[in-house]
Amino acid sequence: MLKFPEPGDLVRVWRDGLILEGIVMPNTEFSSENILIIKLSNGYNVGVDLSKSRVEVIKERAYEVGKIPEPTTTSVRGSGEGKLKFISTGGTIASRVEYETGAVKPAINAEELIEMVPEYLEGFSTIEVLELYRLLSEDLTPSHWERISEEIFRSFESGADTVVVAHGTDTMGYTAAALAFSLQKLPAPVMLVGAQRSSDRPSTDSVINLKACAVIGKEAPFGEVVVVMHGSSSDSYVLAHRGVKVRKMHSSRRDAFQSINDVPLARVDFPSKKFVLINKKFIKRHTKEELTHLGKFSNKAALIKFYPNLDCSLIDYLIDRGMKGLVLEGTGLGHVRNACTPTISRAVGEGAIVVMTTQTLFGRVNMKVYTTGRKLIKAGVLPASDILPETAYVKLSWLLGNYPSDDAEELKQKFLTNYVNEFNPSHDEVHFPRWYHGG
Amino acid sequence: MLKFPEPGDLVRVWRDGLILEGIVMPNTEFSSENILIIKLSNGYNVGVDLSKSRVEVIKERAYEVGKIPEPTTTSVRGSGEGKLKFISTGGTIASRVEYETGAVKPAINAEELIEMVPEYLEGFSTIEVLELYRLLSEDLTPSHWERISEEIFRSFESGADTVVVAHGTDTMGYTAAALAFSLQKLPAPVMLVGAQRSSDRPSTDSVINLKACAVIGKEAPFGEVVVVMHGSSSDSYVLAHRGVKVRKMHSSRRDAFQSINDVPLARVDFPSKKFVLINKKFIKRHTKEELTHLGKFSNKAALIKFYPNLDCSLIDYLIDRGMKGLVLEGTGLGHVRNACTPTISRAVGEGAIVVMTTQTLFGRVNMKVYTTGRKLIKAGVLPASDILPETAYVKLSWLLGNYPSDDAEELKQKFLTNYVNEFNPSHDEVHFPRWYHGG
Repeated sequence: MLKFPEPGDLVRVWRDGLILEGIVMPNTEFSSENILIIKLSNGYNVGVDLSKSRVEVIKERAYEVGKIPEPTTTSVRGSGEGKLKFISTGGTIASRVEYETGAVKPAINAEELIEMVPEYLEGFSTIEVLELYRLLSEDLTPSHWERISEEIFRSFESGADTVVVAHGTDTMGYTAAALAFSLQKLPAPVMLVGAQRSSDRPSTDSVINLKACAVIGKEAPFGEVVVVMHGSSSDSYVLAHRGVKVRKMHSSRRDAFQSINDVPLARVDFPSKKFVLINKKFIKRHTKEELTHLGKFSNKAALIKFYPNLDCSLIDYLIDRGMKGLVLEGTGLGHVRNACTPTISRAVGEGAIVVMTTQTLFGRVNMKVYTTGRKLIKAGVLPASDILPETAYVKLSWLLGNYPSDDAEELKQKFLTNYVNEFNPSHDEVHFPRWYHGG
Repeated sequence: MLKFPEPGDLVRVWRDGLILEGIVMPNTEFSSENILIIKLSNGYNVGVDLSKSRVEVIKERAYEVGKIPEPTTTSVRGSGEGKLKFISTGGTIASRVEYETGAVKPAINAEELIEMVPEYLEGFSTIEVLELYRLLSEDLTPSHWERISEEIFRSFESGADTVVVAHGTDTMGYTAAALAFSLQKLPAPVMLVGAQRSSDRPSTDSVINLKACAVIGKEAPFGEVVVVMHGSSSDSYVLAHRGVKVRKMHSSRRDAFQSINDVPLARVDFPSKKFVLINKKFIKRHTKEELTHLGKFSNKAALIKFYPNLDCSLIDYLIDRGMKGLVLEGTGLGHVRNACTPTISRAVGEGAIVVMTTQTLFGRVNMKVYTTGRKLIKAGVLPASDILPETAYVKLSWLLGNYPSDDAEELKQKFLTNYVNEFNPSHDEVHFPRWYHGG
């Protein structure tokens, strides 16, 4: 095997005297390392054991998996009320369709969506699916956030009542924060939904996550950007987490998404589909006319996680690369080594805004307690309370994108403004999860 | 106020017609921003409200707070059995003494230790206190890990039966991992202990954490490096977490330290002081003769946390700075944006070892599922299973320090070796904490 076969490649396989030709399909979760799924010309998929077969790539990228020439919109009519706009950006949730249909068709269209979730037909009068991207979420950048945000804004303008965004789970928290900042005073929840198990597996979580979206879209009193994902490892309930307070906390569990320094906004129980409001502190729905769209994101923000002996010159490097905003993910109450104070001072001196978050994730920064923190404040670092490091990064990118001419002091004021509950002023016991400490 | 008064400065204060002179004391947790504690020449401490007083720095650094000219050893004899070696590196746990005695005396000595924990007198025949550093833990570097490790090794050589290391909590997890790798086949648990509340406060957690060390030192069947800290927000029990599997998960709670992808090794209940073994899978105590010491740490390791739009040239920059080991803290199952693959390939090509961990912290990396991961493996990235990013960083520093002439392939093999349970091959339900999802 000269070239490692990748999805989209046309390959020839020799096995037990048999020769097969087909297109390599994207791997699904829990595929074995040694099994290659190929789609034959007759449409069937077969698994090829690489340890027992010879495989040769005949043509690289015979099909452009993951690339879409043009965003496509499809729609179907339902018997219910209201218009659902479903925007697909890619990720595992869209992989069933991609997997089943091969690499030539769009990953998802309206017909396929209602096949997965027939309830949508009863729930809405129109189900409109926009396949915007077919991206792995780790490849999304601020420019994608801009486009997704714009499409949502347009959707509401053109009559959508409920908006769902299908998204890879890896960076879903980042995108959720981006949408939360860029689209405020929402007329309805904007729901990011994904799957931790690909949709062609019996154990997929995508279907009930999608069902929960219909319930939340109809019943939630809030107009916030939320991540709608499993709340337990069974199918018993789905949670709506506040987009600026949620984090992927497990690499593979279905209930990987959890709220940090906050509680989820709501829960949808299954099979009853009962909507339960958990968080009484929410931003209510606004009218469509009130919706604001401030949708630019800058490439000039960066995040540095501190660790012992961090090379402080990294900060210089980023400033020299033109960065205007820097999130430090410090230790404990918001510290980095004292040796970094001069480079941080220089960054601030050159007009960059530097904010401090904590790698403990839970709790809040308090830089007035120890000398290190006080020195950092003196150097111009902004303590960022209990905001997640990831949300702080997105917020800086958003502020720098929309207020490029603001000076650092103005940006600091804006950074400290609590736009969409990204800061939670009061923590209590339920905000820290319970850990196993023996029977 | 021309110069902001810092601990150690001699200041003059004008207030209500009164003039006071004294040394600025280190702040304690929850000190108000506007209150300066100064020690008068008569030994009393007074709080000065900065908003109502005029303060002038007469002499900067009149006392060198936090600096120790020479490590000092003090000891007292007890009525029990065995020798306790107590090594102080600084941090909040040593702050009571520093605070009470001002800046002229060592932060802690044997007399002061047994004043805090009189039980040590009954528990040991000798209590020897080495004040090695008076450092804020964010300032510790690999060279400090080397020294602490060496002192522990020497302590066991010179007859210590129990070793306790007092340490700031900010980077305690990193140091714990460093000691775990450098000191293997331990004859007794090596216990890192700290405080989240300074020792001069009634709510301090340091006393029962220190008491728990005596119990664990006597009763634990394991010879591992552990972090000994509160298990709850009350004083009901203290946990011993495996040093390579523990993380500070809250900026201020007393039970901030929690085991990730593992369960704590043991619990000490209070007030009964009952020792409860929680984790049946542990490394047993060895004889003192079996103890191995491999105590070098390299400065040529680095950690990069990935986020959307990460500037991939950071990797080039670190390699150009001479880094030989790189921990990536990727998303989900172990991904970074595809745009970074070429720079990662280059790093590997130049002989660096690049390992992948996950920013979800819980769960393990699996890079065989999605294309991104497969490409990264092909580029030479080593999937690092369920190791914590912080532990992976320390492990790379340790491997590069002790095996500087190994090539990347040999280092990869060593990296994948499970030395001290830094990899946990089996996860189950209790490894993921329980979150609040409504009543």
